[in-house]
Amino acid sequence: MPKAVKIGVIGAGSATFSLGLVKDLCLTENLTGSHVTFMDIDGDRLEAVTKMAERYTQEIGSNLSFEQTTSREVALADADFVINTAAAQSHYHQVDMRAVYATHGYYYRGPGFGSYYNFNLMLDVARDIERICPDAWLIQSGNPVFDGCTLMTRETSIKVCGLCHGHYGYYHIARTLGLDIDRIDFQAPGVNHCIWMTHFIYDGEDAYPLIDKWIEEEGPTYWESHVAEGTHDIQLSRGTVHQYRLYGLFPIGDSPRLGNWWYHTDIDTKKWWFGEPFGGPDTHIARPVHVENLEKRLNQIREASEDPAAKMTELFGTEKTREQQVPIINALTNNVEGQFQVNVQNNGAIEGVDDDVVVEVPAIINSKGIQPIQVGRLPKKIMLEQLLPMILNMEHGLEAYRTGDKSMLLWEALNSGQTRSYKQAFGALEDILQQPGNEDANDHFRYPWPTGHESVYLEE
Amino acid sequence: MPKAVKIGVIGAGSATFSLGLVKDLCLTENLTGSHVTFMDIDGDRLEAVTKMAERYTQEIGSNLSFEQTTSREVALADADFVINTAAAQSHYHQVDMRAVYATHGYYYRGPGFGSYYNFNLMLDVARDIERICPDAWLIQSGNPVFDGCTLMTRETSIKVCGLCHGHYGYYHIARTLGLDIDRIDFQAPGVNHCIWMTHFIYDGEDAYPLIDKWIEEEGPTYWESHVAEGTHDIQLSRGTVHQYRLYGLFPIGDSPRLGNWWYHTDIDTKKWWFGEPFGGPDTHIARPVHVENLEKRLNQIREASEDPAAKMTELFGTEKTREQQVPIINALTNNVEGQFQVNVQNNGAIEGVDDDVVVEVPAIINSKGIQPIQVGRLPKKIMLEQLLPMILNMEHGLEAYRTGDKSMLLWEALNSGQTRSYKQAFGALEDILQQPGNEDANDHFRYPWPTGHESVYLEE
Repeated sequence: MPKAVKIGVIGAGSATFSLGLVKDLCLTENLTGSHVTFMDIDGDRLEAVTKMAERYTQEIGSNLSFEQTTSREVALADADFVINTAAAQSHYHQVDMRAVYATHGYYYRGPGFGSYYNFNLMLDVARDIERICPDAWLIQSGNPVFDGCTLMTRETSIKVCGLCHGHYGYYHIARTLGLDIDRIDFQAPGVNHCIWMTHFIYDGEDAYPLIDKWIEEEGPTYWESHVAEGTHDIQLSRGTVHQYRLYGLFPIGDSPRLGNWWYHTDIDTKKWWFGEPFGGPDTHIARPVHVENLEKRLNQIREASEDPAAKMTELFGTEKTREQQVPIINALTNNVEGQFQVNVQNNGAIEGVDDDVVVEVPAIINSKGIQPIQVGRLPKKIMLEQLLPMILNMEHGLEAYRTGDKSMLLWEALNSGQTRSYKQAFGALEDILQQPGNEDANDHFRYPWPTGHESVYLEE
Repeated sequence: MPKAVKIGVIGAGSATFSLGLVKDLCLTENLTGSHVTFMDIDGDRLEAVTKMAERYTQEIGSNLSFEQTTSREVALADADFVINTAAAQSHYHQVDMRAVYATHGYYYRGPGFGSYYNFNLMLDVARDIERICPDAWLIQSGNPVFDGCTLMTRETSIKVCGLCHGHYGYYHIARTLGLDIDRIDFQAPGVNHCIWMTHFIYDGEDAYPLIDKWIEEEGPTYWESHVAEGTHDIQLSRGTVHQYRLYGLFPIGDSPRLGNWWYHTDIDTKKWWFGEPFGGPDTHIARPVHVENLEKRLNQIREASEDPAAKMTELFGTEKTREQQVPIINALTNNVEGQFQVNVQNNGAIEGVDDDVVVEVPAIINSKGIQPIQVGRLPKKIMLEQLLPMILNMEHGLEAYRTGDKSMLLWEALNSGQTRSYKQAFGALEDILQQPGNEDANDHFRYPWPTGHESVYLEE
């Protein structure tokens, strides 16, 4: 007899995410009768989402039930699963920060205080779960998955599973090569935003040679002429293929777009590596387009929600999303086994990574739990140049957060590939911490010396 | 009954080093009757050193015996100890390299091929020892001690002990503070060229407060007015004290002068951090002075060696040096126990460092062997920002050397704080590898793609 569940969604105001979840629940017969509590700090969006969820469920004839609350405690009460999709600071705040970076000579990314606000939020949620519903699974669906899940699993005793979309990047390769997704078998372990495709199998055969052939025959033309279909269309860009040439494995999804500062120094360089017209998702050209697309969709949803005649099933469709949340819930609850791409504590799944670091690996999930597949070792060069530096950087960020040592933020700023001098990094960090909205962070981080002493180290 | 030993010295052409060794042997009664084989590829210097060693021994009335050879095999035959002080490339070659760096916009240090030549030399020596005198101790006295000793201990089964002078940096602090060296107890573990003074004890009391008082009362004046007594006089410079302020422990000897690129971007910056007139030992001003001093001493020695009336005991003195080689040989051979600062495989001496990484730690040495003192953990911030990045960098260098993967050299070049673009690093690396004297390295390192493919990634 399949079991229904009680799900608390933190940051439920995102209609796209929440309605996708509702849709997947409606289309998963096993979970019929489940109860979802939407929680958000924005009461208006919460109200709209809840209404739409009810309309969708009614249209499709499912018997899910919903509740809305601005109280996290209410959302967690008796929860079997908690999905956290909340982000602490907005797109608009990030735009302001980018303007400050620019005045100090940084393009797009600059000195900062790591994930201070998101870490606070994640730890608050995790500690509430520990207290209110200690047996619940937390499905962490907001960034930073890597750092945040590592932090939560170390600081609390709750069960955490982090999810991301990045691994679907192999779809893009398949589509470009004209391959049928359903005949592909792949594997891409690593840590979130740094995963490497160790296996790409088509009809049971290694399909990397097909990629090699494509690069050989079509790569150069593609890099000259391809116009990105979206801001994130970089999976076969010159920059990504360059990384493949260096490492022998493809970096997948978000992996090729982060790190390795020399791809990212300015818009021309980014276009060269990641293509026209955006230069990848992290540029002053791409980001507004991405945010605008999100807003267009949001407006479309808002209008539909205010129109009693609008069909929710038309707005959101009646096909399952490719999100993993609901299938994982069903696997854990009703033993409908599947293989998923999850972020969980390593415990030996990847060789050479500490046990208490959260890695992104395939896992078999059923009512026994989430059981990661031991993928063994990644190529040593990837470990030394990509994975281990990223892990060290994560550890550094967590320690800076834990201690509130401002000089660790300065150290991180100094180690940005765009920093030219001590003074530049120092000044940019000061300025960022002084920005409206960053008061708590500014209060949290302190230099390890008496106030004002830092001037001794600033040459006129 | 004390035992005499047979010592092979590789790179014995350095008169200062070799005669220091002879002096220490003469002044160590236990080792009377020992035999030293000097080996060098420069027959003239070898001849001069051997003659001086004989004269010194005669003057002082010791019964050491000597032999000279240009064959490493001869030097190793029946050796109880092998001292390797050889360097593969000269000061002058380094000057040429610096000129090339400069044309690509790098100050003093630029892209390169790591310690390719020294690694070759070290491995050759270590493998010869393994074959010819497998029970001998190798006392590695030439750079790179950290990387090289790690490499040799991993690749061969010989016993290796690396030595450096850096830890004597605490003498400088003591002198400046007017403290009596003999009443100081100190400890400064880490890895070679990255050691941190965890303990500074004077008459049994923590003496760090004395340093704090000095910094408070005299630091600012010192940084404005102090004129360096020598090129390496940076132990109390603004840059070193800055690191102390950041980490709560003093970096000792060579440690404050390496790494942390922002102290080293140009001569003005270096002077600001490391003082007038040299800006530390690694500047275009300091290095010629250092080399000139070495040569002056060399000429002085050469003249004396050609003057039959010159007293070797006047030239080299009759007090023991502060070198550790001979006391360590005596400790291992004749059980004259002592505590020394050595570079040996970690095996748990420093927490959080892999067992097979060579660390610099205090060790008790006697006829039981070299037994490192377990110093426990270093502050987490030092681990995350200094020690672990340096270890990762060492591992990266060893892997680049092992594989001959040129793109790993490129990666290292890209990660230099002075690099501004992919193209700059790429061009500088090409140019360095094309320099006369670097032919073998150029031959060893290859990109992991077909020849010429790299042009695909070079924007016009």
